[in-house]
Amino acid sequence: MTIDTALSELSTLLGDRLSRSKSDLEAHGGSESHFAPAPPDAVAWPVSTKEVSQILRTCHAHGCPVIPFGAGTSLEGHTSAINGGLTLDFSRMAALLSADPGDMVAVVQPGITREDLNTELRATGMFFSVDPGANATLGGMAGTRASGTTTVRYGSMRDNVMALEVVLADGRVIRTGSRAAKSAAGYDLTALFLGSEGTLGLITELTLRLQGQPEAISAGVCAFETLEQAVGAVQHTIQMGIPMARIEFVDTMSVRAVNAYAKTSMPEVPHLLVEFHGSQAAVAEDAQTFGDIATEFGATGFESATKAEDRNRLWSVRHKAYYACLGLRPGAQAIVTDICVPISKLAQAVTETRADIDASHIPGPILGHVGDGNFHAILLIDTANPVEVAEAKRLAARMTERALEMGGTITGEHGVGMGKLGYMDAEHGAAWGVMGDLKQALDPKGILNPGKVIRAN
Amino acid sequence: MTIDTALSELSTLLGDRLSRSKSDLEAHGGSESHFAPAPPDAVAWPVSTKEVSQILRTCHAHGCPVIPFGAGTSLEGHTSAINGGLTLDFSRMAALLSADPGDMVAVVQPGITREDLNTELRATGMFFSVDPGANATLGGMAGTRASGTTTVRYGSMRDNVMALEVVLADGRVIRTGSRAAKSAAGYDLTALFLGSEGTLGLITELTLRLQGQPEAISAGVCAFETLEQAVGAVQHTIQMGIPMARIEFVDTMSVRAVNAYAKTSMPEVPHLLVEFHGSQAAVAEDAQTFGDIATEFGATGFESATKAEDRNRLWSVRHKAYYACLGLRPGAQAIVTDICVPISKLAQAVTETRADIDASHIPGPILGHVGDGNFHAILLIDTANPVEVAEAKRLAARMTERALEMGGTITGEHGVGMGKLGYMDAEHGAAWGVMGDLKQALDPKGILNPGKVIRAN
Repeated sequence: MTIDTALSELSTLLGDRLSRSKSDLEAHGGSESHFAPAPPDAVAWPVSTKEVSQILRTCHAHGCPVIPFGAGTSLEGHTSAINGGLTLDFSRMAALLSADPGDMVAVVQPGITREDLNTELRATGMFFSVDPGANATLGGMAGTRASGTTTVRYGSMRDNVMALEVVLADGRVIRTGSRAAKSAAGYDLTALFLGSEGTLGLITELTLRLQGQPEAISAGVCAFETLEQAVGAVQHTIQMGIPMARIEFVDTMSVRAVNAYAKTSMPEVPHLLVEFHGSQAAVAEDAQTFGDIATEFGATGFESATKAEDRNRLWSVRHKAYYACLGLRPGAQAIVTDICVPISKLAQAVTETRADIDASHIPGPILGHVGDGNFHAILLIDTANPVEVAEAKRLAARMTERALEMGGTITGEHGVGMGKLGYMDAEHGAAWGVMGDLKQALDPKGILNPGKVIRAN
Repeated sequence: MTIDTALSELSTLLGDRLSRSKSDLEAHGGSESHFAPAPPDAVAWPVSTKEVSQILRTCHAHGCPVIPFGAGTSLEGHTSAINGGLTLDFSRMAALLSADPGDMVAVVQPGITREDLNTELRATGMFFSVDPGANATLGGMAGTRASGTTTVRYGSMRDNVMALEVVLADGRVIRTGSRAAKSAAGYDLTALFLGSEGTLGLITELTLRLQGQPEAISAGVCAFETLEQAVGAVQHTIQMGIPMARIEFVDTMSVRAVNAYAKTSMPEVPHLLVEFHGSQAAVAEDAQTFGDIATEFGATGFESATKAEDRNRLWSVRHKAYYACLGLRPGAQAIVTDICVPISKLAQAVTETRADIDASHIPGPILGHVGDGNFHAILLIDTANPVEVAEAKRLAARMTERALEMGGTITGEHGVGMGKLGYMDAEHGAAWGVMGDLKQALDPKGILNPGKVIRAN
C-alpha cells in the first residue's frame, strides 16, 4: 500500500520519532471538538526543516497524506486524518530562535505555544499580541489565520506574521516575506499560506511582529440590563474610533456559568470587559470616554483598574468563560461556532442569534470579540442524541446564513477545517473554485491535509 | 492574426470605445518613467464589470494580451504593452458607489483617483488614508499594493482593501473578502490579487476601509546637521512606538532642489517632516515627545503647527520634492527607485546609498517614507547617454542588493513591473517559481499583463 511504503521508508529516517502505537494515533486523531475521531496511520516528530522536507518528498512520491499538528486546539476538525496518512507533530520544533528589539520581531519554530513565547519574551519588554484564548502553537495559529481578544487593537495573524519558511508538498523549501515593514515585490505569498490550514504547504519557521509592552494598561468591566444595550455600546465605541485594546462581550448565560463555576456573584446580566493600552494620560482619557458611552447605553457599575492584580480579577470572568460554559451541562459536548459581521450589523446579529437559541431547547451562551464584529455560540449538546445534533447544526447554519446576509463571513477566527466546508460555496461562490485551482497548482497530488478548506473532487 | 481577430470582435461590442488611433496608443504605451514606449494595438474604455468580462472572454479565446491602465503613474513599466494587445483604460469606471459611515467603508470602481475619492468623501468626515504621492487610481494602487506617507500609521493597500471584485483571465467574475473586520474562511484571495499588477485578474470593484478625520492634526519640521542624525532620530522614534501619522525624510540635495524650484530659503541640510493625528491632548503629547527625541539627535528649529494653512506650508516642501528634484537637471529623465529595509538598518542603508551616489557622477536626491524603512533615490540621467544609463542601473542594483543583505525588500511600494524583474530571483529564490505556478493556474494562456512580475518562460 502506498501509505505503508512511505511509512516504512520514513521509519528508517526517523527511528523512534515515527510512531504507529495506538495511543499516539488516538492522541492525534481528534481535537477539542465534536468531530468523530479520525486517527492517522502514523505520527512523526520532525526536528528540522530539512527533515520536514525529506518527509514530504517521501510522502509526495508515494501519495501519502500529511496532516500538520500543533497543540490540537482547533475547533473545526482541522487535524482529522480522514484519509489516514502521517500526522506531523511539531512539538519538537518549538524554539524561539531570536528576538530582536531593534526591529520588534521574533523568529520562531511552528511548535512553540503562544504562552511559552510570551514567557520567553517577558524580559525583553515586548510581547506577541495575538491571543485566541487557547494555548495554541504559532504554526497552528498561522494555519488558521487566528485572531482573538486583542485583534481589535493589534490585528490578527494576517497583520502580525511578516515572513514564513514553508515546505511545499513536493519537499521544496521556500521563504516568503521579509523583515521590511512593507513590500511591493510580487505576490503576497505570506498571506496566501496564512489561513491555508496546512493544505498548501507546511510552515516550518515564522517571523513575527512584536509589540512593546504599553506604558500603562487599564481594564474595566460593566453590566447592562439588556444584550442590545451592551452590543449597542460596542458598536458606538468602535464607530467613535476609541482605540480599544480589548472589548469582549459575555451574555447572561455566560455570566451565570461563570458564577456557578468560579463561585462568583456577578449580576446575571450581559457584561462588557474592556482594556486600554497606552500612555498614562491616553489610557485615562480612553477609559473616561468609554465609560461615558457605556453609561449612555445604560451601563451600571463601570469599574476600571490599572493594577495588574485588579485587572486580572476583572478579566477572570472572560478567561474562565469557555470552561465555565461547558460546565453548564455536565457531560455535554460543545459545538462552538463563530461568525463575524460588519460592525454596523453586530447588535442585530447577536440579538437575533440569541433569540434563535432561546427558541430551541439547547443551552447556548454567546460571547466574543465583539470589537471585530466576531462572536461565538457554545451549543451544549449530547452528541449521542441525533435530534440535538441536528438542532445544533441548524442553529449553526442559521448563524452562518445570517452572517452572509449581513455582508460578513462564516468564520472570523476558527477557520474552515471540515466543520465550515458546507458553507464555503455560499460565502465564496466561484472564488471557492479559484481556491481549488491554487490548491491544484501547489499540491497536485492532494497530499496536504486532505478534506479541509477545498471543495472535495 | 489572433490579436486582430480579438479586436475586430471587440469593436462590435465597444463601438467608439475601442480605439486604434495613434495618439490613443501612444498615450497608453508608456508611463511616468524611463522605459521605452511599448504601445498596445488598441485601447478600450469599458464601462461595466460585465463588459470587462466579455472583453476578457474574447481576448482569452484568441490569446490577445490585456493590460490594465489607471492613471499611468506607475514607475516600473507596469503598463508597457510589450507583446502588443489591448489596453483597458478604466477611466470610465471611476465612480464612488457607496460610502458607509456605520462600517467606515467605501465601495469604488477601479478608475477613481485617490484625490477624487477624498474630495467626494470630504462631507462624510471620513477619508481614505493611502497616499502614494501621485494621483493614482485605486485600481492601480491595489494592483501595486501601494503605500505612502501615511502607511506608518494607517497601513498600505494590503491593510485598507477589504474586498474585491475581480474578472479572471477567462472572463469569470469572482468576489473576494467581505465587510467583516477579519475572516478565517479559506485562502486570502484579496491579498493575492493586491500587488499582482494585473497579472492574475483585473480588479473591477474595491471595498475600502476608511478612517475618521482625526480630532486634531499637528505637523512639524526640523533640520539636522547630518543625514545620520536625521535617520537616527527616525529609527529611535519608531522603536519608541510613538504613533506617527507621517514621518518623511528629505536629504540636502532634495532641499536644495525645493529651494530652487519654489524660491524658498530652507537651510540646505537634511530635514524630517512629521505629522500626528489624534485627540488634542494626544497630538500635543506626541509632538512634545518627538521634539525631545529630535533635539537629542541634534535637530534644530523644530516647529509644529496645528492650523491647516501652517501645516500645509510646512508640508509643501515634501509635496514639491519630486518635481523639484526633476528640475535639478533640466532635460534629464529620472530613474526613481525604491527599497525598504528593516527599521534597525535604515540609517546604515540611507548613509551607504548616499555615499554610493556621491561617489558617482549622477545627481540623486534621496527622500522617502522613512517610518516604514522605505526610501527613494531619484537618479537624474540623460537616457540617451549609455554610460549614464549603465551607471544609474549600477546604483539602483546596488540599492536592491543592500536591501536584501539587510533583510529587506527590492521594492517597498513601486512594485516589480519590468524594472525590478531582474532582482526577483535574488529576493525570492524558489518562491518566485511558486508565483509562476500561481500565474499558470489562474492565467494559463498568459494573456494578463505579460512580461510583468513573473519569470519569463
